[in-house]
Amino acid sequence: MEYPVIERKKNFKVGIIGASGYTGSELAGLLARHPAVELSVVTSRQHAGKQLSEIHPHLRQIAEHVLQPAEALLKDPPDLVFLALPHAIAQNFVRPLYEKGVKIIDLSADFRLKSATVYQQWYNTAHQAPEFLEQAVYGLPELFRSQIRPARLVANPGCYPTSALLALAPLLKEKRIETGSIIIDSKSGATGAGIKPQASTHFSRVFGNFAAYGIGSHRHTPEIEQELGLLAGSAVKVQFTPHLLPIDRGILSTIYVRPTGAIHDNDLRDLYGRFYFKEKFIRICDAPPELKHVRGSNYCNIYAHHDARTDAIILVSVLDNLIKGAAGQAVQNMNIMLNLKEDSGLGHIPVYP
Amino acid sequence: MEYPVIERKKNFKVGIIGASGYTGSELAGLLARHPAVELSVVTSRQHAGKQLSEIHPHLRQIAEHVLQPAEALLKDPPDLVFLALPHAIAQNFVRPLYEKGVKIIDLSADFRLKSATVYQQWYNTAHQAPEFLEQAVYGLPELFRSQIRPARLVANPGCYPTSALLALAPLLKEKRIETGSIIIDSKSGATGAGIKPQASTHFSRVFGNFAAYGIGSHRHTPEIEQELGLLAGSAVKVQFTPHLLPIDRGILSTIYVRPTGAIHDNDLRDLYGRFYFKEKFIRICDAPPELKHVRGSNYCNIYAHHDARTDAIILVSVLDNLIKGAAGQAVQNMNIMLNLKEDSGLGHIPVYP
Amino acid sequence: MEYPVIERKKNFKVGIIGASGYTGSELAGLLARHPAVELSVVTSRQHAGKQLSEIHPHLRQIAEHVLQPAEALLKDPPDLVFLALPHAIAQNFVRPLYEKGVKIIDLSADFRLKSATVYQQWYNTAHQAPEFLEQAVYGLPELFRSQIRPARLVANPGCYPTSALLALAPLLKEKRIETGSIIIDSKSGATGAGIKPQASTHFSRVFGNFAAYGIGSHRHTPEIEQELGLLAGSAVKVQFTPHLLPIDRGILSTIYVRPTGAIHDNDLRDLYGRFYFKEKFIRICDAPPELKHVRGSNYCNIYAHHDARTDAIILVSVLDNLIKGAAGQAVQNMNIMLNLKEDSGLGHIPVYP
Amino acid sequence: MEYPVIERKKNFKVGIIGASGYTGSELAGLLARHPAVELSVVTSRQHAGKQLSEIHPHLRQIAEHVLQPAEALLKDPPDLVFLALPHAIAQNFVRPLYEKGVKIIDLSADFRLKSATVYQQWYNTAHQAPEFLEQAVYGLPELFRSQIRPARLVANPGCYPTSALLALAPLLKEKRIETGSIIIDSKSGATGAGIKPQASTHFSRVFGNFAAYGIGSHRHTPEIEQELGLLAGSAVKVQFTPHLLPIDRGILSTIYVRPTGAIHDNDLRDLYGRFYFKEKFIRICDAPPELKHVRGSNYCNIYAHHDARTDAIILVSVLDNLIKGAAGQAVQNMNIMLNLKEDSGLGHIPVYP
Repeated sequence: MEYPVIERKKNFKVGIIGASGYTGSELAGLLARHPAVELSVVTSRQHAGKQLSEIHPHLRQIAEHVLQPAEALLKDPPDLVFLALPHAIAQNFVRPLYEKGVKIIDLSADFRLKSATVYQQWYNTAHQAPEFLEQAVYGLPELFRSQIRPARLVANPGCYPTSALLALAPLLKEKRIETGSIIIDSKSGATGAGIKPQASTHFSRVFGNFAAYGIGSHRHTPEIEQELGLLAGSAVKVQFTPHLLPIDRGILSTIYVRPTGAIHDNDLRDLYGRFYFKEKFIRICDAPPELKHVRGSNYCNIYAHHDARTDAIILVSVLDNLIKGAAGQAVQNMNIMLNLKEDSGLGHIPVYP
Repeated sequence: MEYPVIERKKNFKVGIIGASGYTGSELAGLLARHPAVELSVVTSRQHAGKQLSEIHPHLRQIAEHVLQPAEALLKDPPDLVFLALPHAIAQNFVRPLYEKGVKIIDLSADFRLKSATVYQQWYNTAHQAPEFLEQAVYGLPELFRSQIRPARLVANPGCYPTSALLALAPLLKEKRIETGSIIIDSKSGATGAGIKPQASTHFSRVFGNFAAYGIGSHRHTPEIEQELGLLAGSAVKVQFTPHLLPIDRGILSTIYVRPTGAIHDNDLRDLYGRFYFKEKFIRICDAPPELKHVRGSNYCNIYAHHDARTDAIILVSVLDNLIKGAAGQAVQNMNIMLNLKEDSGLGHIPVYP
Repeated sequence: MEYPVIERKKNFKVGIIGASGYTGSELAGLLARHPAVELSVVTSRQHAGKQLSEIHPHLRQIAEHVLQPAEALLKDPPDLVFLALPHAIAQNFVRPLYEKGVKIIDLSADFRLKSATVYQQWYNTAHQAPEFLEQAVYGLPELFRSQIRPARLVANPGCYPTSALLALAPLLKEKRIETGSIIIDSKSGATGAGIKPQASTHFSRVFGNFAAYGIGSHRHTPEIEQELGLLAGSAVKVQFTPHLLPIDRGILSTIYVRPTGAIHDNDLRDLYGRFYFKEKFIRICDAPPELKHVRGSNYCNIYAHHDARTDAIILVSVLDNLIKGAAGQAVQNMNIMLNLKEDSGLGHIPVYP
Repeated sequence: MEYPVIERKKNFKVGIIGASGYTGSELAGLLARHPAVELSVVTSRQHAGKQLSEIHPHLRQIAEHVLQPAEALLKDPPDLVFLALPHAIAQNFVRPLYEKGVKIIDLSADFRLKSATVYQQWYNTAHQAPEFLEQAVYGLPELFRSQIRPARLVANPGCYPTSALLALAPLLKEKRIETGSIIIDSKSGATGAGIKPQASTHFSRVFGNFAAYGIGSHRHTPEIEQELGLLAGSAVKVQFTPHLLPIDRGILSTIYVRPTGAIHDNDLRDLYGRFYFKEKFIRICDAPPELKHVRGSNYCNIYAHHDARTDAIILVSVLDNLIKGAAGQAVQNMNIMLNLKEDSGLGHIPVYP
């Protein structure tokens, strides 16, 4: 992976619908400095008419776009559009964009689940564009690159699912673990909860604090189970417990699984090394990874360990929830869809310490 | 100061009007465990009918009061009432309480300024009970103990002013510093901004961050100038700059003043030692104090230094903004007003580290 | 539980061997303000001759003891001594104290394990006082109060084990869960790693970071398995994974177990309510507890939930590792051993937010 | 400033002496991804023979250099060398490099002060290479670009001085402020204290804490006074007080100065806008800047305000101490010295929130 990028002419125009939140602003920063695409339009219902950098001052002199209403984008759409909107809102933009031939990367949850029924069950609202569910490709490049390349609609994975799936994929695909007793204990920084001030993300409450939430009921559960089921070739049930870390960025998942047969600790490392051999954004570790080793970057670090005393496998993965868990992964998907270098515009060095 | 308190019979009933915020909950905890008073009633407009511990779960099994409407308290008032309300609201409760002979400690800003005009100028609202301004006593026990004892209405000082006034009082009273060039650079944890979620106190924004705010316009400025003026015997002008620290509790003020004559570093320490000799909650330090040295306690630590190279005096003070800067100081005032031991119920050890 | 304590005469003298660390300083603060005991002597090998408050400045005017060499204490021992020393060091002080009739509370790991062999295996050093292992009582008051009362040597539990055992005891004692698949995913603040500066607890590294450590090899594993085995009446194996939270104080354990038969979520809450009915320091919660709900206090908050979808039980417990996880629990043990009120000197309100 | 960089051939080789610390690792990351230079050699006395990424795991797959002894570099030196060493050590490498025609950027304090006497006075050690002091250029590009371009030895500024000088330069150069009463109240994250574990930077101590240090005695004082004096054309005395923020990265300086004549708030903004008009890394702000607006980037944000009530000017500047305050500024200097685009390899978007 090299910084000195090959592409110099900006051959593609891209846009963002919904730039008021953290995912939107992260995307805007990444795309403004992307070597091969031009961020031609950024929209915001709430802030239309203002400067993007007025809402997100860290982008001053980096992305000085005037925020448009979404209608402006729809009238003269760019080649590819990112939907950085809440679930249930994003789905309404797919048909108009699709009909104009625009490629779409949706960062909401609206097209991640294959079943409109399951969607309604976990999101408490009927899906308004179920006809697109089948063709939507789940945008986890390391697992589904070939489907992403020709896709016209990519559902960008959730942050927690990305951390769980990348860690579990090698073992599940090679049928080395039991599928009925997977425990995923995840811990996320507060940016995962969005930009909207609320009691649960008030600084004085979260600072120096720690708690579990959504035990047994978090909406990423069906997404994880669906994708693990596809990898395993059979239904998978997981116990997923998210926790709120008193930091801004990062997800660490500690995962407990049972091997189906004998396995040695060293074999595990080999297995992971082979599985992710060519991947530029996956780093297999010899020691438990630290969250800050990936902060500000598109890396996902993974550690796999077999505990001989208990015959259990413990997996640990870390990623930056706003980058590999959201905007960075979306840009990675875009690079694939536009046939650019996959790491183009994603060469960020982790901000450590 | 000893924990084993003398008072055992609970001779006084006290109440809190407004328990939904941080000051109210801090007061509730302090008073629930106070050896000589009974917290007989706690009110909340917003949450009347709920348990206090439902709103503030850390108080479970400590203060299991049902929140009342303020009217309930006014009908059958206790001996002393704390007003833990926003400014402009608190002032409306003074007359009804006063007329029933209830002692009042107001933790808002409503009775700190002597002048209704200055109040209106900085708080942008006309004072509704200006007739009480004159008799209200500024509740800084270390400086105004004798006035507090007989007072019927005490204005509990602001958190920033407490940190500034305790540090500056010895030098001002002894006329050792110039009064026209006082610079107060203060840094406060986020609980000072209250419990209400807003963009400026959203966790993801404040975490790992730091900024100045209210430069030249913070409402504690006239309060500081008024009290310094009284200490100095002449008008004092200060440059006060507050900053938001990315922590929950604590204020540190760094203060720059010019000596009026020759002064040695050692003299300074002596002067402070003498001035606060009998004070149980003031600790004069030989080295710059750390915020956590007072966290969770009613202490204010003060350091005074003369820089011979520049002939300037630098003062540093630290306190816990919710205790010595608010609820703890209010309890200290109550103890004085009720003729209890001044440190009764305030023996908290700083929570360090 | 009330602050106004009954005991007023200080009938007992107590001492601390080893006051340079966090456990020692926490003990010193608690004991200095304890209503019924006198902290008569505090020792430190490293700092003998200095003031305790020089090493721990937050204790100024609270515990102004001159640090003694341990020999001074041994010559004229108080009624009860706390050993706040590293493991393998503490064990050397037991015989001399025991022979003088002094009651001992050891906060190290030296007398927690019943077997000298297991001790050697996990601590990599031969036990020097194995003859005391049998009579040492494991000092978890909520489970072993009657043995603690007459004990002459109490082994104060580890911080992680306290959080795990209090959460698991009700289910294990009533044989409601399987004993072969217990997963304990714990997260601790950095004070658990002690006061000694090292790379793994350097501020710039830990801040904003998060990581697992000691996977499958942490020394609290055999302690947890031993005590769970005693509760269950049969061998228990646990998968214990500690993580380092980027905060100073607090442990949260998320525990995953399998029920042996049908159980409803409501039954669970009842079961816990009954089990801890009379306990003053255990609070059973209706929602996942937050770490700061117990910060600075001796409380342990516990939440139990049955996930009907997966038929798993998820437990969450929180405590302050330096108080209920160390010094507070030690004082609770002392109160029992000296026949004082069990919550004497432990009425600290959680410091929230 | 655009990411798509022009330079593609790596025309220059550069090296780092001293890569074990934070400055060295930050440099290594920046240079590994720099489009126009090749990081050909990285040395470490302590870790020679190990992989750089073993010491700094976040650099895995980014900078996979084997650490060399410094001698290896000296034998076959690259075109330009960065010294990322402690003061008093760095100075020893200048002559051997200089004699081989290597360009040098020293990130230590060794060549910042023009006077060997002043150096000895503040650093308590005699300078070993005073003959280079005169020709060393102070590497603050926005002020001294033309001297930096031809320089063979650049003294990279201290982090605090960078924040103070960039904020004060416009007013001092235009003689708009008094030079005898400049107060600089600075607050820095803990990475400024380096990678070596010590009591003052132990996580449990610094977390949630805040304190001033080095009052009147910090070594950046003479550096600031020297450079301000050069800007002003006369001696300048400053009161500089650093504080330790409980965060990893960032410096915010609040500066108090007196205007020499009438000045309006709007004039101030114009003056700063004009002064830094062409600068890519300086952003003049309309509101007090937040530290995280520059985290992870080479930007310095500056705010200037005139308080009409007190007739004082308050300046606030923020920067990332490891980037604009150290490694990023060093790369900026390198770009100038090698005649590359000045922002080459420095297009990092601030990591916000």
